Amino acid sequence: MSLAPIGIIGGMGPQAGLDLAQKVIAETKANNDQEHLPMVLLSYGHLIGDRSAFIFGDPIPNPGIAIASVAHQLEQFGVQVAGIPCNSAHAPQIRTIMQDHLKHVNIKILHLIQETIDYLRQFTPNITHVGCLSTLSVHRLELYKSALEEANYTVVMPSEDVAENLVHRAIFDHDFGIKAHSSPVTPKAKKMVLDAIDHCHQKGAQAIILGCTELPLAVSNTKDVYLIDPARALARALIRETYPEKLNPLR
Amino acid sequence: MSLAPIGIIGGMGPQAGLDLAQKVIAETKANNDQEHLPMVLLSYGHLIGDRSAFIFGDPIPNPGIAIASVAHQLEQFGVQVAGIPCNSAHAPQIRTIMQDHLKHVNIKILHLIQETIDYLRQFTPNITHVGCLSTLSVHRLELYKSALEEANYTVVMPSEDVAENLVHRAIFDHDFGIKAHSSPVTPKAKKMVLDAIDHCHQKGAQAIILGCTELPLAVSNTKDVYLIDPARALARALIRETYPEKLNPLR
Repeated sequence: MSLAPIGIIGGMGPQAGLDLAQKVIAETKANNDQEHLPMVLLSYGHLIGDRSAFIFGDPIPNPGIAIASVAHQLEQFGVQVAGIPCNSAHAPQIRTIMQDHLKHVNIKILHLIQETIDYLRQFTPNITHVGCLSTLSVHRLELYKSALEEANYTVVMPSEDVAENLVHRAIFDHDFGIKAHSSPVTPKAKKMVLDAIDHCHQKGAQAIILGCTELPLAVSNTKDVYLIDPARALARALIRETYPEKLNPLR
Repeated sequence: MSLAPIGIIGGMGPQAGLDLAQKVIAETKANNDQEHLPMVLLSYGHLIGDRSAFIFGDPIPNPGIAIASVAHQLEQFGVQVAGIPCNSAHAPQIRTIMQDHLKHVNIKILHLIQETIDYLRQFTPNITHVGCLSTLSVHRLELYKSALEEANYTVVMPSEDVAENLVHRAIFDHDFGIKAHSSPVTPKAKKMVLDAIDHCHQKGAQAIILGCTELPLAVSNTKDVYLIDPARALARALIRETYPEKLNPLR
């Protein structure tokens, strides 16, 4: 293998792995199959415990250990740079253990949340007020909130009521939620996400991070506010770190 | 790795690899990330020459050799069963060379076209007349036509005019074709595919194989005729050959 493939640690969930791979393809300058970038996706959800359950106290092994073992396998197949399309896998208590277990492995694991902040800076250089919609666990972990504050943004989070009764339900409801019905997304789920966006916009947000891989399925564009897709940010970062000349211009 | 992962030889094109992975997920009995099946996708389009170009005489190496080298890598990841989501890679002059190069490698590569015929038999047991829409190269190779005849079906192919001016254009046209515009598919491309389906139906087809990975994006169901998606057939076969207890019932 002459070219080092881009690595994806997938399975958290399996759809999110494919979504990231899809965005790597979409962000690559290529006119035919041969011009696309080499990519390895290991979808090994069976090995990796539930990240939210671990964070909220379930007595299961730290998922960072299993994630590191998948990264190690990727490295054995020539991967030097990889991404993890899962927000809660980036909680410090998981990420730190993963890095500890990769001390002697020559692979760079990009940071989904940091890359999202970098992308936000590039894509919307003149804004100051940023919101974030996500599942309740990412919301309560404040992963994006603390990263945004560190980057000197004014953070505009949805109220607990909106986070729980609009966003979380739009993602998880068994009858109309996006996890259960994604093609197409139900009008009800879509409206709930749009209402949550509107709520943050009313509170002053100029851009909103869609901090859950299901959310970009429901909404892609709005007139009033920039929507930021972390998977797109990570896909672009994977290309930038491996084959920067193949990265599509930002649009 | 305790469980042998399902293997996908992707990159032909990159989207078709993701489409197959997507269908493996959709056909798996699973209630959470941990219950999904392990899967390795190697998207190595850069290594594998254009299949149609080779078949129609371009002086490039037989793509079967590169495909075999990717299969060999999969085997090193513990893969025992893999699929190739590319119709023209199943032309005998490519498939035979691939198998020659895998003589001493312990991996089973399922046959997309044979699996499609098996799926057709199971899914629509009482029909006799079957058509197939595809790109012009697969059409002219008669890959599905000969396999259907061998399985004692009466084959109802579209006319050359329909194959070229409706189906091939709906896939490849730069302005409105499915390769250029897939989300959403343009109304024009969709209508052309539906007209081609109607044409085969008028000629007596009871089921129609959508022998190009782009076609299921344009149409999923019709009232008059069964539509058969080879990627779905291959996804189901991959599960059947590895973890049959996890295969969703046929519906």
